[in-house]
Amino acid sequence: MINVGVLGATGAVGQRFVQLLAAHPWFNLKTLTASERSAGKSYREAVNWRLDVAMPENMGDIVVSKTSVDSVKDLDIVFSALPAELAGILETEIADSGVAVCSNAASHRMDADVPLVIPEVNPDHLGLIDVQRDRGRDGFIVTNPNCSTIVMTMALNPIRKRNFSDIRVATMQAVSGAGFEGIAAMAIYDNVVPYIGSEETKMETETKKIMGHFNGSEIEYSPVQVSASCHRVPVIDGHTMAIWADTDDPAEEIINDFRNYRAPFSNLPTQPDKSVIYLDAVDRPQPRLDRNSGNGMSVSVGRVREGLRFIATGHNTIRGAAGASVLNAELIASRKYL
Amino acid sequence: MINVGVLGATGAVGQRFVQLLAAHPWFNLKTLTASERSAGKSYREAVNWRLDVAMPENMGDIVVSKTSVDSVKDLDIVFSALPAELAGILETEIADSGVAVCSNAASHRMDADVPLVIPEVNPDHLGLIDVQRDRGRDGFIVTNPNCSTIVMTMALNPIRKRNFSDIRVATMQAVSGAGFEGIAAMAIYDNVVPYIGSEETKMETETKKIMGHFNGSEIEYSPVQVSASCHRVPVIDGHTMAIWADTDDPAEEIINDFRNYRAPFSNLPTQPDKSVIYLDAVDRPQPRLDRNSGNGMSVSVGRVREGLRFIATGHNTIRGAAGASVLNAELIASRKYL
Amino acid sequence: MINVGVLGATGAVGQRFVQLLAAHPWFNLKTLTASERSAGKSYREAVNWRLDVAMPENMGDIVVSKTSVDSVKDLDIVFSALPAELAGILETEIADSGVAVCSNAASHRMDADVPLVIPEVNPDHLGLIDVQRDRGRDGFIVTNPNCSTIVMTMALNPIRKRNFSDIRVATMQAVSGAGFEGIAAMAIYDNVVPYIGSEETKMETETKKIMGHFNGSEIEYSPVQVSASCHRVPVIDGHTMAIWADTDDPAEEIINDFRNYRAPFSNLPTQPDKSVIYLDAVDRPQPRLDRNSGNGMSVSVGRVREGLRFIATGHNTIRGAAGASVLNAELIASRKYL
Amino acid sequence: MINVGVLGATGAVGQRFVQLLAAHPWFNLKTLTASERSAGKSYREAVNWRLDVAMPENMGDIVVSKTSVDSVKDLDIVFSALPAELAGILETEIADSGVAVCSNAASHRMDADVPLVIPEVNPDHLGLIDVQRDRGRDGFIVTNPNCSTIVMTMALNPIRKRNFSDIRVATMQAVSGAGFEGIAAMAIYDNVVPYIGSEETKMETETKKIMGHFNGSEIEYSPVQVSASCHRVPVIDGHTMAIWADTDDPAEEIINDFRNYRAPFSNLPTQPDKSVIYLDAVDRPQPRLDRNSGNGMSVSVGRVREGLRFIATGHNTIRGAAGASVLNAELIASRKYL
Repeated sequence: MINVGVLGATGAVGQRFVQLLAAHPWFNLKTLTASERSAGKSYREAVNWRLDVAMPENMGDIVVSKTSVDSVKDLDIVFSALPAELAGILETEIADSGVAVCSNAASHRMDADVPLVIPEVNPDHLGLIDVQRDRGRDGFIVTNPNCSTIVMTMALNPIRKRNFSDIRVATMQAVSGAGFEGIAAMAIYDNVVPYIGSEETKMETETKKIMGHFNGSEIEYSPVQVSASCHRVPVIDGHTMAIWADTDDPAEEIINDFRNYRAPFSNLPTQPDKSVIYLDAVDRPQPRLDRNSGNGMSVSVGRVREGLRFIATGHNTIRGAAGASVLNAELIASRKYL
Repeated sequence: MINVGVLGATGAVGQRFVQLLAAHPWFNLKTLTASERSAGKSYREAVNWRLDVAMPENMGDIVVSKTSVDSVKDLDIVFSALPAELAGILETEIADSGVAVCSNAASHRMDADVPLVIPEVNPDHLGLIDVQRDRGRDGFIVTNPNCSTIVMTMALNPIRKRNFSDIRVATMQAVSGAGFEGIAAMAIYDNVVPYIGSEETKMETETKKIMGHFNGSEIEYSPVQVSASCHRVPVIDGHTMAIWADTDDPAEEIINDFRNYRAPFSNLPTQPDKSVIYLDAVDRPQPRLDRNSGNGMSVSVGRVREGLRFIATGHNTIRGAAGASVLNAELIASRKYL
Repeated sequence: MINVGVLGATGAVGQRFVQLLAAHPWFNLKTLTASERSAGKSYREAVNWRLDVAMPENMGDIVVSKTSVDSVKDLDIVFSALPAELAGILETEIADSGVAVCSNAASHRMDADVPLVIPEVNPDHLGLIDVQRDRGRDGFIVTNPNCSTIVMTMALNPIRKRNFSDIRVATMQAVSGAGFEGIAAMAIYDNVVPYIGSEETKMETETKKIMGHFNGSEIEYSPVQVSASCHRVPVIDGHTMAIWADTDDPAEEIINDFRNYRAPFSNLPTQPDKSVIYLDAVDRPQPRLDRNSGNGMSVSVGRVREGLRFIATGHNTIRGAAGASVLNAELIASRKYL
Repeated sequence: MINVGVLGATGAVGQRFVQLLAAHPWFNLKTLTASERSAGKSYREAVNWRLDVAMPENMGDIVVSKTSVDSVKDLDIVFSALPAELAGILETEIADSGVAVCSNAASHRMDADVPLVIPEVNPDHLGLIDVQRDRGRDGFIVTNPNCSTIVMTMALNPIRKRNFSDIRVATMQAVSGAGFEGIAAMAIYDNVVPYIGSEETKMETETKKIMGHFNGSEIEYSPVQVSASCHRVPVIDGHTMAIWADTDDPAEEIINDFRNYRAPFSNLPTQPDKSVIYLDAVDRPQPRLDRNSGNGMSVSVGRVREGLRFIATGHNTIRGAAGASVLNAELIASRKYL
């Protein structure tokens, strides 16, 4: 078993990490960290568990550590659900100290030698781990993209051979993306908020890196242009998005691409049967009905129309956050980077 | 006073007509029609009033008539909130019988000699009334566009001189657009439904007519291309949309267009002070906060970004339906078409 | 294996039956019935699956039968999710023909010789099966109570020895209780509807039967008086209720009753570890967080205050409907009534 | 004109005060106070206006003062929307300095010589103003009850002659009651929270004072017992409650009480035509449809059933907060207490 821990284990993404790792076949979750206030308490006491699945019983007794390099120095992998303002320095120190960091934080995503990886999309970018090591780092950092970027790039992956270069995307994003306390009920109920801080920039820049080419030493960014308009809607979990891509290929061919798509490997425990699910019904995908497909790890697509226009939905705190990091860790472990 | 009536006065749009006309300074609302089942009852008994403003007291005592040509033959104007399957033939017969029909129904919107009008956008299209009369019709039909099309074309109106020809629009539409019973709570709560029957086609075709040129005898359609993706979200009233238009003009100029825009006339009672309101705040417009601006008759825009991308919101059953027809009727009356 | 079927398998409760029975260790689900329109189609084609868990793959290929006595005559048990207007006669005919009927319909709940059973509350009422057989019936009917009644009587069960006789209950019920199409979004969003047809009467009368005494030949109704006020709230799944019972026993004792309560048996597959879960947190139970406890089969209680006042929550379409019938069938099977 | 100000003018209740006072026929709103951070800014700059009616234009230019005794010393009346932790001392100091304080804060509601008034229910309690003056205070404090208490006691007022002494009430309260930021969307969407801090105690104690007897020098508390269970539901505005009162009088008589009820005076500008509206429809009152009745100042009741059980709804931030204080001030002004 590989010993792992979660940094920032009491927040919205932290709780998802605990849910996904509590009974993991490869990873032994033994360390949960949080702020000073929670340190020394049992996880059961420290956390205000707010997922709609029960807290795994065996996790409740773990004594929470203070978030620090020392707390995780004996682990093989730490998963980071830290806020960006803490993640920057701390993840660097932890990686330098010899631990593998799989981070959901934005801090290092665009660092030149840090892989920004979705296993099904750009697994070869893990080669940057060697670049980090070559400059003398004992551990390494691997990041996953922002939640919306993950759903979009996974949905585009089966049709990448169509060679589009101009993407427009309008997102309808769930409130859980802002954390448990991030959005007031008065702000979003019976409402749409057409602004999510820095989300559009993330979609536009991260996509160029993810779809870029790893030449053995660095990522050559993709020329793809993304123009995003990001909106918050009254949905608990599940980001939905309308995507336009510049191909005139007939919708029927695109649908076949989606139907015939298979992930390039199938040996990772958190990987769903189908990474991308094509739905025939004229009114799908829908976040409430499709977010939990593949245990929250599948992205569902549908409504392919000439243009090219289509719709994609994925679970933002599972596929788009904690599950993304866990799947990255599984890919890392399976490729002997530990 | 001009005598008017409402066809289909008990439904969602019909109730909005009654709300807007009950105390109208020019129009005397004297006839309310509904199905056989309601005919002969007082409006108070016949209607299940479900707006969040009280039913105007003076309307409650009107005895509801059966929807028919005879019921409205003595009126100057009838407003039609009929479903499309009834509106087609009946509106034709009523117009032929000498009454002016201001219709919210889709049936005649694309008829060659029927104006599809938004007063602030294409008032000259009312010239088609003469075309109808020239072929011997005693009355006439004037229609307003579909709710989403109204919000979009009004929002684009202040910047039409920018000469865009390629529009992408992703809508986030309110449930009231489907009528009181149109969408089940189980279908839309905590959800997004990425499909609204024939809505995308309406936005794409109606816009070409509205933005077209009236050459004195017919409308020459605009070459503008609209690619729409329409979605239902859990919002009671107010359609919000992300719009892309193909101009590289700087956002600052576009914002000035919006700020400096004034409607071409200001003498109509239902017309708001500002037809298009530009909002500075980074997170506006929002349907719950902005749908009632200008008594529901203003369209609010904001988040202008290079691209060109921006957001528009408008009240779908007031500006986008009943209020649109009433404003058309006011324009007709002010221009002596009656 | 015991061969079973579901009557009315395409509706909201019918889909829950299919979810719960698809991989049941004792029951082999082989027959799904629906209206004429669906008969002959595969279940995959016939159903508009709308649960937020995927349709069990092995169910999709079952060819749907027309709801009739013939369609189920070879089964051991049929589960009925029929609407009341169909259930009355059809369930009688099926029971007469020799099949065991476990029904969620209201039609026969108050019949003198039909058990109205919650396994943890009044398992001995199954003795009425013998009464049915003694009058010559080959099969039998067993019913479960209305969803609200189940949650309330289960919550009261651990404290029945407190000998209360006067119950007041205010319910806050989920929209799924009215079926997929039962409640329009415009009716319930941002709203409370303080009326659910015949729900209050069901809570008041069914409770007297459930808490009644089976004397070997009939049920002597309990003198307990229930005064219910039933309200629909904007919640997808999970009925919550404020309950007052007339005991002056200290809250601490009542809490101990809840904490120490154990179901009278623990050998049924669908039975949760804890039928009634006591929650310490001051703001629990809550439907979104607690409805899925025990796979939707546990009732959660909390906020015990002098008075006696407390709160209960349970999943209305699992514990309160399909799961209730399945658990009844398991009790029947385990007690050799088949 | 009477010069007035609002303490805490930028919050949820503060904005309602500004909405109600901007065009008041008796009161000249000239001072708006807020925290240090806002002082010196125009109200337009200082406030994040979040009501769904536009900010009154004439208010935007008022320069916000720091909340202090000095800022309001030249006013006749100040309305307090301060949080309880600030209101306690500051309201005392302001009243001592000679200004009339109409407060929505809880701090002084239960003070022996402070009136806790609803004009239609206990206007004579204003006599306590003289008690305050007799002990040498130059100004005075008058409070209105908590929002839920107002709705309940107004609803009970038409039937007080029925001499009930035992009230049970289950509330379903709107999120606006907790302020704009008080409740996270993740906490209440698709959910019910069966706990609102100290709300039940307020309903139980304030009611005894409001329904008490003013004997010329103090309030003799009513013996009425209230047992409340308070719940938050996903509703923006409007508290709904199920009320039980111990009378066996027939429902028909109770309904007549409600129908025939008239407020004891009708000369106050903010007073609605009907303080209590009885609704016949079986499924009313409902918060979304009835909260705005009487401009948000009416309480709607319905579903009167033997027991006695009935339902009441009222707007929590208008009738239950800002409007309550304004109406109190109007009563004070009309009775020459200034």
